Amino acid sequence: MVLRMSRLMLKTLRDDPADAETASHKLLVRAGYVRRSSAGMWIWLPLGKKVLENISRVIREEMDAIGGQEVLLPALLPREPYETSGRWSEYGDLLFRLKDRKGADYLLGPTHEEIFTQTVKDQCTSYKDLPVILYQIQTKYRDEARPRSGVLRGREFQMKDSYSFDTTDEGLAESYDLHRAAYIRIFTRLGFDFRVVSAISGAMGGSASEEFLAPAAAGEDTFVDCPACEYAANSEAVTTVVGPVKDVDHPALKEVDTPDTPTVEALAAHLGVPASAVLKNLLVKVDGEITAIGVPGDREVDLGKLAEHLAPATVELVTAEDFTGRPDLVRGYVGPQGLGIPYLADPRIAPGTSWVTGANAPDRHALNVVAGRDFDVDRYLDVVIVQPGDPCPVCGAGLALDRAIEIGHIFQLGRKYADAFELDVLGQQGKPVRVTMGSYGIGVSRAVAALAEQTHDGAGLCWPREVAPADVHIVAAGKAVQTELALDLAGKLHAAGVRVLVDDRAGVSPGVKFTDAELIGVPTILIVGRGAASGVVELKDRRTGAREELSVDEAIARLSA
Amino acid sequence: MVLRMSRLMLKTLRDDPADAETASHKLLVRAGYVRRSSAGMWIWLPLGKKVLENISRVIREEMDAIGGQEVLLPALLPREPYETSGRWSEYGDLLFRLKDRKGADYLLGPTHEEIFTQTVKDQCTSYKDLPVILYQIQTKYRDEARPRSGVLRGREFQMKDSYSFDTTDEGLAESYDLHRAAYIRIFTRLGFDFRVVSAISGAMGGSASEEFLAPAAAGEDTFVDCPACEYAANSEAVTTVVGPVKDVDHPALKEVDTPDTPTVEALAAHLGVPASAVLKNLLVKVDGEITAIGVPGDREVDLGKLAEHLAPATVELVTAEDFTGRPDLVRGYVGPQGLGIPYLADPRIAPGTSWVTGANAPDRHALNVVAGRDFDVDRYLDVVIVQPGDPCPVCGAGLALDRAIEIGHIFQLGRKYADAFELDVLGQQGKPVRVTMGSYGIGVSRAVAALAEQTHDGAGLCWPREVAPADVHIVAAGKAVQTELALDLAGKLHAAGVRVLVDDRAGVSPGVKFTDAELIGVPTILIVGRGAASGVVELKDRRTGAREELSVDEAIARLSA
Repeated sequence: MVLRMSRLMLKTLRDDPADAETASHKLLVRAGYVRRSSAGMWIWLPLGKKVLENISRVIREEMDAIGGQEVLLPALLPREPYETSGRWSEYGDLLFRLKDRKGADYLLGPTHEEIFTQTVKDQCTSYKDLPVILYQIQTKYRDEARPRSGVLRGREFQMKDSYSFDTTDEGLAESYDLHRAAYIRIFTRLGFDFRVVSAISGAMGGSASEEFLAPAAAGEDTFVDCPACEYAANSEAVTTVVGPVKDVDHPALKEVDTPDTPTVEALAAHLGVPASAVLKNLLVKVDGEITAIGVPGDREVDLGKLAEHLAPATVELVTAEDFTGRPDLVRGYVGPQGLGIPYLADPRIAPGTSWVTGANAPDRHALNVVAGRDFDVDRYLDVVIVQPGDPCPVCGAGLALDRAIEIGHIFQLGRKYADAFELDVLGQQGKPVRVTMGSYGIGVSRAVAALAEQTHDGAGLCWPREVAPADVHIVAAGKAVQTELALDLAGKLHAAGVRVLVDDRAGVSPGVKFTDAELIGVPTILIVGRGAASGVVELKDRRTGAREELSVDEAIARLSA
Repeated sequence: MVLRMSRLMLKTLRDDPADAETASHKLLVRAGYVRRSSAGMWIWLPLGKKVLENISRVIREEMDAIGGQEVLLPALLPREPYETSGRWSEYGDLLFRLKDRKGADYLLGPTHEEIFTQTVKDQCTSYKDLPVILYQIQTKYRDEARPRSGVLRGREFQMKDSYSFDTTDEGLAESYDLHRAAYIRIFTRLGFDFRVVSAISGAMGGSASEEFLAPAAAGEDTFVDCPACEYAANSEAVTTVVGPVKDVDHPALKEVDTPDTPTVEALAAHLGVPASAVLKNLLVKVDGEITAIGVPGDREVDLGKLAEHLAPATVELVTAEDFTGRPDLVRGYVGPQGLGIPYLADPRIAPGTSWVTGANAPDRHALNVVAGRDFDVDRYLDVVIVQPGDPCPVCGAGLALDRAIEIGHIFQLGRKYADAFELDVLGQQGKPVRVTMGSYGIGVSRAVAALAEQTHDGAGLCWPREVAPADVHIVAAGKAVQTELALDLAGKLHAAGVRVLVDDRAGVSPGVKFTDAELIGVPTILIVGRGAASGVVELKDRRTGAREELSVDEAIARLSA
């Protein structure tokens, strides 16, 4: 079917939508791919729907190639299985919840681990029925607090989610590797610049996990990239490597008066030492028990990372009331030496390192406080926010930090859901074997925005070929003879299997048509202009801008190749 | 991709699910196409998903062929536009409603007239932008009071909905006709036995409307079918034709004592007349005003039809309290003569017809009560339930009544939604023109069940070719050599473009495999059995049961043709 702009519902806009901040948001709206329905809910117009379908097709082909079986589960799901897994409450406000006419509780599925687990429990009874990889491309829901950036982070969105079911850890690793390879093929075919990085799995539970990140300024994820080796990771997943500590004979601990120095800045200035020489102690409540976290004075604690490490325990900040009746805790002057509460610390607080820290008395600090000599660390944790130049955990080079969009995520979930739903199959030895699972996601609608972010230029969108709504955009410069030739060419190219968008609008100036063609971003633009009468057309590469005059036959041969 | 049953997630069941009543529900579950998730919510397993996709593909092809443009709208929709149209409340309990984290009201879309109207208002500004036909294949929601019959009437279901936008009534009629023709092609290709019948449009509003019905015992719709001419209609849409009334000189009205005869049955027995000679008067409240409806004594009033005719007025039944202080209304003895309330009647109560009816006094009836002489009818309405043998409104022959499943519905909505949303475009004369709309639906998931109802037999499902999950189901009878040949054949057929399902399961008896093949219902079954060693296989037509022995090469040639 030749797409004719004279008939297509498409209204391009000259101005950016008022609320748009990111390039993809602006351009997808201006070029007529999407329109906002309500906050975080989007309408996919004809061109946008085609891009969505193209991405889905590539995903389907690669999922089928690794033996994935496509299914379709409901989006509206009963509460019970999400109670069983704990996610009914864990998801908090992110979950859209509702009641049916009988008052029964339902939710709109954010991901479907629970229902897939139940389905496999119903369908598979023997180890012979496994492994199995199931996937769906489906509408998902998350009630984001601040839906933004257009379709990059919507509240209703399209996602490919898949789940693997194996009887052994080796099987799970294999299913995981199949997905990893399929994802690399998918994102390569879609034309992404992407990195595969280590990740923390977050609320999904589980162990091994990697993210597929598309570097882009509009991204909400930060990742570290080693300029010297292959290492890359979500910044939350970076592990700190501490070099060997020199065996120094530190002077004895010594307390000094440091009037009015409750902050690291004030103390460092007062003593004339760098902030990194100070041991900063943050107090939190872990399951209600006051606990100190020691980090170098020039570092910030990532509370999300801390909570992640200590889960399922809850982590809260202390409040003024927590100090009532606790003369041992002196705000702004806490030190680990002789402190009677649990003490966690960043790996940089290694045994043998010496610090300036609080003396547990107002306006007093201690110098030469040595880890392992003057205090002990109960547990080392990676909880500080990574900074550019931090050492690569693999090669030690200084890490770079970049922004990226998460376009895919693969998890080895293990037996978390299988345990919750008692998913066993009969094993080879005739005994029940607990199943182990993986879960794998690709944001389909997000991929549209991420590609737009990565590939656009000053003139508009600029789609990779497999994703573009058409292969060629024919612009009929305006006269009747040109439109006629353009439509004739469109028909011939279509017959040759080329996907054609033709601008056959009457009463629209060639200038507007060229501007629209750049904005819409089909890879090749074919201009039927002045040379049309003598059978000459112009081919323009949307990305490079390279132009070439060709005869009509040459153009057809070139584009059908 | 060859579908191998040794790897497919498929568990057939020998027994019907306990809660299943209809054949499609039983067989789709038993053959492993669908599984219930919760009441009215269904999981589409791999084979079911394929059938769903096949139906969607046929619909897409035919919608594209009439110039339809595919889009995708959100399923989660804001309350406001549904307030504007009035459907937020009109839909009552059928609507799933929910609030987001900020307390804003949302609904899960049952159909999308409102949002499509808004979209076209945003995208189209001139008569030159129209006509336009937009469609989507999308998940829809209706909180049915009693979800039943499997996927035939779910609470979450797949639907193709399309909407046409025109500037003139002739344009709307053309868009409607395009859809009508496309629907006929779609249902023919899908292998349906179907009828196109006149319909009342119900809560959708609008005027011209037809339903596509698939006759089936499990259907929830009743339609009439004329055995003598082409006439067919939803039984609610049948119009009553009354023959000419003979000009008879009726005797004068005469009141008689009829003790204890408040019912038609009692009265007819007492007087020795047929029930059809009695004029029965039902009292209702129309917008609160007591109104009588006269119908022949052997007829029942369809309250739904009555409400439809009188909408937007509300219709309620009278209660005992309504008779308080109304000595003129004598329960069981009401007659239209001298009655001081509005009087509506069935067309059979034509002027000149004579009746036995109440005398508006306890235990008294009147004979020879002639319409137009002794009482007047304020308005004639078609409100009685149609019965077999009622005259065809076209040719007068006795109508037959049948059960059917509604698989499609087309409406000329007119300007109802365009008025609500003030959808105008600039007309040819430079003045705003109000747009007129059509709305058109096909139940995609329901079509799966409806086809199963129409095409199954005692052994299982029996799919039409375009819908079947595969073209051929190869059964490897069991020995290794047979499985090998079966897989080899499968590969060759797949290469020739044939969609293949192959039963290569080890340790499953040939009997079980044959039973499963019949149950699953792929059109052609190819048996690789005893003759395999000498290169002979057996082809079986699933529908007719016809079997034929062929060489492997002949089988490939036949199936690839």
